[in-house]
Amino acid sequence: MRMLVTRREHFSAGHRLYNPGYSDERNAEVFGKCSNPSGHGHNYVLEVTLEGSVDPETGFLFDLKELSGIIHKSILDEVDHRNLNEDVEWLRGRNPTTETLAQAFWERLEPQLPAGLLSRVRLIETDKNWVDCTRD
Amino acid sequence: MRMLVTRREHFSAGHRLYNPGYSDERNAEVFGKCSNPSGHGHNYVLEVTLEGSVDPETGFLFDLKELSGIIHKSILDEVDHRNLNEDVEWLRGRNPTTETLAQAFWERLEPQLPAGLLSRVRLIETDKNWVDCTRD
Amino acid sequence: MRMLVTRREHFSAGHRLYNPGYSDERNAEVFGKCSNPSGHGHNYVLEVTLEGSVDPETGFLFDLKELSGIIHKSILDEVDHRNLNEDVEWLRGRNPTTETLAQAFWERLEPQLPAGLLSRVRLIETDKNWVDCTRD
Amino acid sequence: MRMLVTRREHFSAGHRLYNPGYSDERNAEVFGKCSNPSGHGHNYVLEVTLEGSVDPETGFLFDLKELSGIIHKSILDEVDHRNLNEDVEWLRGRNPTTETLAQAFWERLEPQLPAGLLSRVRLIETDKNWVDCTRD
Amino acid sequence: MRMLVTRREHFSAGHRLYNPGYSDERNAEVFGKCSNPSGHGHNYVLEVTLEGSVDPETGFLFDLKELSGIIHKSILDEVDHRNLNEDVEWLRGRNPTTETLAQAFWERLEPQLPAGLLSRVRLIETDKNWVDCTRD
Amino acid sequence: MRMLVTRREHFSAGHRLYNPGYSDERNAEVFGKCSNPSGHGHNYVLEVTLEGSVDPETGFLFDLKELSGIIHKSILDEVDHRNLNEDVEWLRGRNPTTETLAQAFWERLEPQLPAGLLSRVRLIETDKNWVDCTRD
Repeated sequence: MRMLVTRREHFSAGHRLYNPGYSDERNAEVFGKCSNPSGHGHNYVLEVTLEGSVDPETGFLFDLKELSGIIHKSILDEVDHRNLNEDVEWLRGRNPTTETLAQAFWERLEPQLPAGLLSRVRLIETDKNWVDCTRD
Repeated sequence: MRMLVTRREHFSAGHRLYNPGYSDERNAEVFGKCSNPSGHGHNYVLEVTLEGSVDPETGFLFDLKELSGIIHKSILDEVDHRNLNEDVEWLRGRNPTTETLAQAFWERLEPQLPAGLLSRVRLIETDKNWVDCTRD
Repeated sequence: MRMLVTRREHFSAGHRLYNPGYSDERNAEVFGKCSNPSGHGHNYVLEVTLEGSVDPETGFLFDLKELSGIIHKSILDEVDHRNLNEDVEWLRGRNPTTETLAQAFWERLEPQLPAGLLSRVRLIETDKNWVDCTRD
Repeated sequence: MRMLVTRREHFSAGHRLYNPGYSDERNAEVFGKCSNPSGHGHNYVLEVTLEGSVDPETGFLFDLKELSGIIHKSILDEVDHRNLNEDVEWLRGRNPTTETLAQAFWERLEPQLPAGLLSRVRLIETDKNWVDCTRD
Repeated sequence: MRMLVTRREHFSAGHRLYNPGYSDERNAEVFGKCSNPSGHGHNYVLEVTLEGSVDPETGFLFDLKELSGIIHKSILDEVDHRNLNEDVEWLRGRNPTTETLAQAFWERLEPQLPAGLLSRVRLIETDKNWVDCTRD
Repeated sequence: MRMLVTRREHFSAGHRLYNPGYSDERNAEVFGKCSNPSGHGHNYVLEVTLEGSVDPETGFLFDLKELSGIIHKSILDEVDHRNLNEDVEWLRGRNPTTETLAQAFWERLEPQLPAGLLSRVRLIETDKNWVDCTRD
């Protein structure tokens, strides 16, 4: 049997999809209204899943309050109510698609967690669109 | 018996809470992280309620497809994937709080609908915060 | 202070919007895809709200298990997994719009409840469309 | 036009429905499984609605962060992860039905808010059952 | 790291569970109220997941607007507001259980997508029941 | 192609996190407010997923009404509106964390189902926290 625990968090942020190597026309063509110059934003939902074994003493795979603290410190404190194109140092130069963000969040979280524990990062941009990064 | 029909729509937009008559410190104090200079955004949910009588021929109080068309044309086409501080002419000079937006949406919708039909505009900014404008 | 209690129930049913006094073209024009001849269906959500005073002995305005029983007996047992155009005697000859159904459900529920207690019937057809019948 | 703002909060608590003036049989009969002696619990959702006018300077009817603080201090800090029959002084001797709790929460909140502002307290016990206390 | 993107869509349809090789009694026994002769229906939710690598130029694994277009053209345009037993050529002769529908949707989608990209089709019939088809 | 079906059920229960081998201080430190002595509770959501092949005669992987019956009999009838520390024989002596409960539910369900069919048990404690037990 495999055991996994998940913590769900929320943040709101602004962004604009944009490739600086593209012409304005190309950006509009590829990214549509997501590329509007003054940006828009979303209520993002972030789900972080850990896989591991349960500590027989506590009955926890991982303390979810501690996981929440790690998510806040590594990610939410830096992206919540921020503009993802401009305000976040470790996102600079990256086009903030949901894929790019989920991958960046994985990279932020993994070194903060015991090796091999992080199993999945799910980032939900809207009720209709989301991305999963999972361990291979 | 009173009859009401409601249509729910969605849009995503960017905004920043900001009073130009305030100092930067005062803006930060009053609006907190909602006032971060480069803005953020939300997945807004907009619910429009009409009150009236049911047409015995159609069984409709109002055709909700038509209502959806009116909401799109008056509001969503102009605010979806836009920056509410900068991109929308009829919001210019207004601080885009949920209250202000709901009121502005009411003002946009009412002239498009038969007199007295509009009963409530609900604007949901996040799962934790929303505003209702209702007919007195 | 006014007190209200609400019970939410679910059912799934088939229907077709259709006025037998209309031509096929007129039905298609007014009801669109909702008028497709072989019908479609929905997962309906039904919310029933009672307004009254709280019994100091029980702390209940009304026993919600009893209310659920009344809703099942008067409505759900007859409409769940049924075709609303064909299977339900007390809907026969009525075009099963959300408005018509909500009103019919009100008429079914009211005589089963103490006088004046029924305050609102909300019928949700989809996440985007719903109807309220409320006491005047 | 009337303006209302709502804040939604969450807490988890244990309770048991029980009237000490009833026999065990009568408690079981009236309250069913909700009266099981060692108690059970819920993830409650609490929605607080204020009605008033919008401050033209801030665009706020009321600062929802401040409202959240008041809800936490008056209610959540005392009931979250608590047993509602035993741990909360201002609920002692009251049978913790959803009706009783909603009314007690109204009484806790009102003196903390400007006169006349509190419009509704909604307490959701489960997805199927909730109670509203509204201003007359 | 594996990357997956998901798109969620909605449709409403009618159906009846029924095996023509069974007697009426056997159909009623196996399929219960889902076999009522004049049918019922659901608000279905369809989630389509693709797995692949992210294009470094766009930051997209796949353009979700394009995926939505493919889902509409291959599936939704044919099933939305239709009767799944009667109206859809490529479902004819199949008993429209959630399992059968999910499999049929997979078969419709796969040839429209780059080889190997389709990872999962989830079809949600109600909040209580759903089916996943996943790549082996 | 792999096929999976899922059934979602709900129950409400009380619990307290507590290791009898810990001092009171250690319990408070490890389990925080979840360890409050008189307990609290949750509206739990339980999702049970089966993986297998579809019966060509019925179009079912497994009859979800039958699965629901098994879940009720093995689990819900014993935990719903109960205290998980005190009332359930097969949980006695186990600290009722979400991990422990999910594992115990797996152990209850598996012998009731055809060999190899049970694929996942998901137990959702709140909208923010859940646990998956999956077949290796």
